[in-house]
Amino acid sequence: MTLNEMAQRVAEELVRDPGRYRVAVTRVAGAHVIDCGGAVDGSLAAGILMARTCLADLGQVSLVPYPLGNVGGLAVQVVTDEPVRACLASQYAGWRLQVGEYFAMASGPMRALAAREELFQHIPGQERAPVAVGVLETHQHPTPEVIAAIVAKLPEDTEHLTLLVAPTTSLAGTLQVVARSVETALHKLHELHFDVRQVVSGWGLAPLPPVARNTIEAIGRTNDAILYGAEVILWVHCDDDLLTSIGPQVPACASRDYGSPFAELFRRYNGDFYQIDPLLFAPAVVEFRNLRTGRCHRYGQLSPDLLIRSFGRS
Amino acid sequence: MTLNEMAQRVAEELVRDPGRYRVAVTRVAGAHVIDCGGAVDGSLAAGILMARTCLADLGQVSLVPYPLGNVGGLAVQVVTDEPVRACLASQYAGWRLQVGEYFAMASGPMRALAAREELFQHIPGQERAPVAVGVLETHQHPTPEVIAAIVAKLPEDTEHLTLLVAPTTSLAGTLQVVARSVETALHKLHELHFDVRQVVSGWGLAPLPPVARNTIEAIGRTNDAILYGAEVILWVHCDDDLLTSIGPQVPACASRDYGSPFAELFRRYNGDFYQIDPLLFAPAVVEFRNLRTGRCHRYGQLSPDLLIRSFGRS
Amino acid sequence: MTLNEMAQRVAEELVRDPGRYRVAVTRVAGAHVIDCGGAVDGSLAAGILMARTCLADLGQVSLVPYPLGNVGGLAVQVVTDEPVRACLASQYAGWRLQVGEYFAMASGPMRALAAREELFQHIPGQERAPVAVGVLETHQHPTPEVIAAIVAKLPEDTEHLTLLVAPTTSLAGTLQVVARSVETALHKLHELHFDVRQVVSGWGLAPLPPVARNTIEAIGRTNDAILYGAEVILWVHCDDDLLTSIGPQVPACASRDYGSPFAELFRRYNGDFYQIDPLLFAPAVVEFRNLRTGRCHRYGQLSPDLLIRSFGRS
Repeated sequence: MTLNEMAQRVAEELVRDPGRYRVAVTRVAGAHVIDCGGAVDGSLAAGILMARTCLADLGQVSLVPYPLGNVGGLAVQVVTDEPVRACLASQYAGWRLQVGEYFAMASGPMRALAAREELFQHIPGQERAPVAVGVLETHQHPTPEVIAAIVAKLPEDTEHLTLLVAPTTSLAGTLQVVARSVETALHKLHELHFDVRQVVSGWGLAPLPPVARNTIEAIGRTNDAILYGAEVILWVHCDDDLLTSIGPQVPACASRDYGSPFAELFRRYNGDFYQIDPLLFAPAVVEFRNLRTGRCHRYGQLSPDLLIRSFGRS
Repeated sequence: MTLNEMAQRVAEELVRDPGRYRVAVTRVAGAHVIDCGGAVDGSLAAGILMARTCLADLGQVSLVPYPLGNVGGLAVQVVTDEPVRACLASQYAGWRLQVGEYFAMASGPMRALAAREELFQHIPGQERAPVAVGVLETHQHPTPEVIAAIVAKLPEDTEHLTLLVAPTTSLAGTLQVVARSVETALHKLHELHFDVRQVVSGWGLAPLPPVARNTIEAIGRTNDAILYGAEVILWVHCDDDLLTSIGPQVPACASRDYGSPFAELFRRYNGDFYQIDPLLFAPAVVEFRNLRTGRCHRYGQLSPDLLIRSFGRS
Repeated sequence: MTLNEMAQRVAEELVRDPGRYRVAVTRVAGAHVIDCGGAVDGSLAAGILMARTCLADLGQVSLVPYPLGNVGGLAVQVVTDEPVRACLASQYAGWRLQVGEYFAMASGPMRALAAREELFQHIPGQERAPVAVGVLETHQHPTPEVIAAIVAKLPEDTEHLTLLVAPTTSLAGTLQVVARSVETALHKLHELHFDVRQVVSGWGLAPLPPVARNTIEAIGRTNDAILYGAEVILWVHCDDDLLTSIGPQVPACASRDYGSPFAELFRRYNGDFYQIDPLLFAPAVVEFRNLRTGRCHRYGQLSPDLLIRSFGRS
């Protein structure tokens, strides 16, 4: 089955029972649009389904206690045996969707149908499918023009589009971002020119932060959950020399901008997102378990105090 | 589907495979009575199904490691996107069932069919259903008179009654009490005149204590698991002022009786349950995540040493 | 349903979708052989299914965060209400399968069909079944001679054999060993002449170590995960005197060989496995919860520093 068909099957659970998940399903220009947190409250369960849709159902997503005693609360755990297809070909928010005044970060397997991103030259996943499924992180409900712009990127034989939509300032929107711990590690590795096809399995954990009302705070807290609170383990096949040279650069602490809550950083750079070091976006801890040699390489550290500050608890 | 029908579906899992769950199914005056821990051993799996029945299957119940290192062991995690219907209209042990010499604390969605409790004037959940499902915390197998007394409380168009029965001194009975972390927080909020309909989702965790042989010790340990070991997060829509004024009163530590194992307290009051401060019954930690403002309010603290003492481990 | 039929149902999930699980299914002398980590990578999901097959699907196996902060990473949690049938009649690696140059540790419910081990004189579980299912911990793919040797141990009315095969040096092979926390406690109890039929339920947790490339290191790390990192809780019916006399001998720390990573120990004894104290093989912590008396007895301690050393992280 294709990534898009697997994602579609998960999205259909939302369509079948919108009341239970507190989502709203509408038709926009022929597409199914599932609002998971804009005009509706959404739910934790909708957030889990959003995360599974992003991963094309190739990862398990569950809520578990966050094990750092002084932080407490719950965390989102992700386990996948197809990390590249699940996290990079599908979950990575690789599209900055700008249509007039409309803006969204777009992710999900519909990207693998277009496959125009540079990333797809380095990973498997490009596909043809009768359906397309995407996830939009945005405050704005997609308009017919937005649908048309997305459809224009897809192959002609894709007949149906489903979009799950939620702002970061919603319950489901926060949850689905925090489910990106493994993805963030893989993307940082790709940025460092590591051949991510060498990663065979992944496990990740990140605390679920309180939903913020303000978009900057919401992006701040979800980023902080990853940068200062996420732990990722990757099972890889490669040379240890490569891991010992690239490994220390992978966790967030390798960045010059490490050490402040993300929202503070954003203000420090006068709201210019692009001045923030792109290498900051990575989990707090990344451990490589090399199946070729049996060696284990662990880099980075958790920063519970920063999490507590970011989550507004002190 | 109604609360009672959803609970019925869970109870049927026990009826279908009593051997696997170590439960005993009998008929008493036309009702299905499922003994989950009186004359039988019961099981952890039966305890999970009891908890899910109590919650009308509107919450997920799972066993996870308890994250406080010096306590260790396992905990019961509850996640719900319908906290009021699941925990108050259904799970709350709102009936003190006294029929002659027979006594049980009764919970479950059958209460929503009677809906005579003051609580139902403040929450949604009252319903009509063709089936009724209840959970009895008691050492005594219900007699035909007990069944008759329950049926007398139900609407005439309810045709069938199913009861799950277990003492606190059993494996399943202990587990289903400890699955009440979110419920305890909601009920305390209701006692403090907070409009609980403002709570949209809940997560809770409480350690599973060793099963005690003596009823007082069993009630003591399960209460201590909540009072000194439970952490609850509630996602709410309300004013922060309300949370900062009511919040500090919510966790158990706000009570004058906080600080001793519950069984000791019971002896201190010469076995008079009603002299214990009713405001004691609340989780150790309650965190409010306000969806309206993005603010996070956390109150209370865990008391691992008290848990270890209560559980008889030191 | 028999243990073997329940295990067969789990194994069929692997047969149905070998690509997803990265396993390879072949026929050897009429038997289904599922390679879960020899010539293939295998996966975490295949490891979970191997563990469930070993347990005859009478235990739940899940991946959860390991709660010791300085160790971190993930752990394998096992919950069972049929500990003796699941762990001893089925999961215990009771067969040392030697056929010419071929060697494997064999476990799984096929042992309950032969039932020639001394252990089966003390526990229930012996059965007849139309199918047989076994798990082989080995680097070597079974040959027709190996299949013939296994079939020769089985009753004549067993018509079909399925074998899951993986070395300890694989992802699935490591995971399925670490899922033996409860089994190890039960087997140690049996060695100490405790009547294990008194154990009604079990919960266990052990960290998932990095897969080692070398067999000694792999056996070392998986053993260390149990000896220094596993916590087990057993719900029992027995006399407290028995528990207070036998209990302290159960955890690994009761052994004279406790305190060194297993691979170091192996080298210290010049590679002679049989010089290692057999009583070393037990979880780090074992807690007994006596349902007869309500008392709780906890023995042993976790050794996070040893785990970190064994896992090659310091």
